[in-house]
Amino acid sequence: MPEMMQVLPPADALQILLDHLSVRVRTEAIPTADALDRVLAESLVAPSSLPAFPRSTMDGYAVRAADTFGATESLPAYLSLVGESLMGCAPQVTVGPAQAAVVYTGGMISPGADAVVMIERTQKLDAANIEVLRAVAPGENVINIGEDVKEGEPLLGSGHLLRPQDLGGLMALGITRVTVAARPRVAIVSTGDEVVSPDAQPGPGQVRDVNTYSVAGLVARAGGLPLPQGIVGDDFDELLSAARTATEGRDTADALVISAGSSVSTRDLTADVVNRLGQPGVLVHGVSVKPGKPTILGVCDGKPVIGLPGNPVSAMVVAGLFLAPVVWRLQGVVSPPERRRVTARLAHNIASVPGREDYVSVKLVEREEQLWADPVFGKSNLIYTLVKADGLLRVPLDSNGLHEGELVEVQLF
Amino acid sequence: MPEMMQVLPPADALQILLDHLSVRVRTEAIPTADALDRVLAESLVAPSSLPAFPRSTMDGYAVRAADTFGATESLPAYLSLVGESLMGCAPQVTVGPAQAAVVYTGGMISPGADAVVMIERTQKLDAANIEVLRAVAPGENVINIGEDVKEGEPLLGSGHLLRPQDLGGLMALGITRVTVAARPRVAIVSTGDEVVSPDAQPGPGQVRDVNTYSVAGLVARAGGLPLPQGIVGDDFDELLSAARTATEGRDTADALVISAGSSVSTRDLTADVVNRLGQPGVLVHGVSVKPGKPTILGVCDGKPVIGLPGNPVSAMVVAGLFLAPVVWRLQGVVSPPERRRVTARLAHNIASVPGREDYVSVKLVEREEQLWADPVFGKSNLIYTLVKADGLLRVPLDSNGLHEGELVEVQLF
Repeated sequence: MPEMMQVLPPADALQILLDHLSVRVRTEAIPTADALDRVLAESLVAPSSLPAFPRSTMDGYAVRAADTFGATESLPAYLSLVGESLMGCAPQVTVGPAQAAVVYTGGMISPGADAVVMIERTQKLDAANIEVLRAVAPGENVINIGEDVKEGEPLLGSGHLLRPQDLGGLMALGITRVTVAARPRVAIVSTGDEVVSPDAQPGPGQVRDVNTYSVAGLVARAGGLPLPQGIVGDDFDELLSAARTATEGRDTADALVISAGSSVSTRDLTADVVNRLGQPGVLVHGVSVKPGKPTILGVCDGKPVIGLPGNPVSAMVVAGLFLAPVVWRLQGVVSPPERRRVTARLAHNIASVPGREDYVSVKLVEREEQLWADPVFGKSNLIYTLVKADGLLRVPLDSNGLHEGELVEVQLF
Repeated sequence: MPEMMQVLPPADALQILLDHLSVRVRTEAIPTADALDRVLAESLVAPSSLPAFPRSTMDGYAVRAADTFGATESLPAYLSLVGESLMGCAPQVTVGPAQAAVVYTGGMISPGADAVVMIERTQKLDAANIEVLRAVAPGENVINIGEDVKEGEPLLGSGHLLRPQDLGGLMALGITRVTVAARPRVAIVSTGDEVVSPDAQPGPGQVRDVNTYSVAGLVARAGGLPLPQGIVGDDFDELLSAARTATEGRDTADALVISAGSSVSTRDLTADVVNRLGQPGVLVHGVSVKPGKPTILGVCDGKPVIGLPGNPVSAMVVAGLFLAPVVWRLQGVVSPPERRRVTARLAHNIASVPGREDYVSVKLVEREEQLWADPVFGKSNLIYTLVKADGLLRVPLDSNGLHEGELVEVQLF
């Protein structure tokens, strides 16, 4: 059994999990218009040049630049008008020597012309003649063919997260469908004899399910599709059966999360189920992170399985550390986008011990024209410590704490 | 006509637009499980206390703390076992003096007990008796009723963007439905005689529609629902008719965006349509921002109307400055979430002129163990300057440029 018996630092634990994944990104072709925030699963190359014709960047006159050389307000160049280049049409006229054609911003430059004179730099003499008051260089106020992107030029690579401008850029080239990573399906099993559905009225000793919903939110934010599997009691056969249903066969989950019971015995239950579910089973049992030490990381026949601690705060911290990177990796993303960070001054001392990474919920408060990070103290069973917080503060592995007044980086939720 | 004839700084222009909006947030009740990243439109108060019963934070024994006072490894306290508190059940036993009941993490504390001794701090003498090796204080290892949140306590306010932990926290209290702001419906009209649909093969002088898709992406990222209206030619009646269809009557758009033609004449067309569409019409025509000067901001019978410049880069910059805040405001959000920012060293001088806010696309490059912001130079007609960039750099209104080597803040896309 490959299980690591010692408690590992979070970064090492994640690396072991990722190393054991056999990532085959599932893909799907979808309309580009629907592809915002999806991960590209192909490398795209420009099928044609953009723009496909020389365009004016100004309202004015398409001219031969040489005809304007030396032109000034006192000594203008005289050109005769040969017509107008209408928007969306091929120009009907050719610009010869000492000639000019009206052109609008975005319009096509008439053959023969190689520059555009802004209308503000001209004077109209009569219906057929203009004065040019300043010289233009060849190519001035013109976007050349392929100046935006050239045919055959690489556009965006596999693993790229599509942004609003990317959709526009692809549409500009007629790329109306793209192959993207399918949203990873993440099955979430909540366990615990004491856990009931949120729409139930809990009896004495019972609590409503929290982790299914907070973890589902985190999965969705990482681009995944959460598949809540309901609540399972603290029973080996029942949990194994739920895990199998969620992960075996076609069209089942790409990853499995088990929000474990929080007592020692139920943690072992999760590990036993992961070891039975597939090979190699449990890879990491215990991570040097607070909260979140009783984390289980495993791979069962190629699929990642994460056993979260039952406490809601631990579950969120651990899901952020391990589940989110896995969901990104299943989409072919190696460096997931980071959450926003702000720098603030720590409002209270935070004690830690070297050899353990601590995550502390903090509230950001503006005081004396400074941003302060106020730790929200509370046990890891208290989901409202996270609800009341704006972000998490990381106390590094080798630190024995952070001091009041220190500048710290807060990762916003 | 209230139209401002001078070109306004972006912040002032936005304020004028927001001041003229009559924001009535449309709301809808949805399942909490579906409410991730939606904006809460009610103020929520805890309907009950959490936890609803005293819970153990450890595996161990529920005891009367007084019975353990003075206990040490050499002088343990002797307690007799009276039973076990099963998970999810009301305890079947009461803990009397010198008695203890088995309890698990998250389990309910038996009546009579007021603390929990960790199992590691005890020794089992026989089936019915234990030794306690260390004293516990009253309340130790116990979460009291209401320690997470108290009945009647305010939870989350109107305007709050729901995060994963918020969903979990609400579910914990049985709040399975929430009233949120409806996604603002934003109609997008693309204009221009030269513009064709992305799935068409453009003829000479024609270009594919870009702005509908990049702006739609931006609307979606701000929580809105983009409603593309297709492409309209440079014709007053046609554009007015499209604008009316999009905004008049029931179930129509909450906001209208017109991606204007880029020539001077078509900009005036947009302004004329906005003035005809409703009262007060155009509020701002021209903003001191580059790219994006020919921006039109208006309100027509309560609905915001934004005329974007036709150039794709200008359109994105202006949509980011004015449309995104409006879409958030329509959801009741006054301080929209910011995009992530990073600090980098500027790789080239950037010239600007005081009195104008400049936005420059930059690519982030790691060089010599430093992050550098490389400006992506290019005309505002070139959508790929944005596709190739990682973020935008703002040159402030009063600056005449930024210097190579300067530390700058880049707002990531």
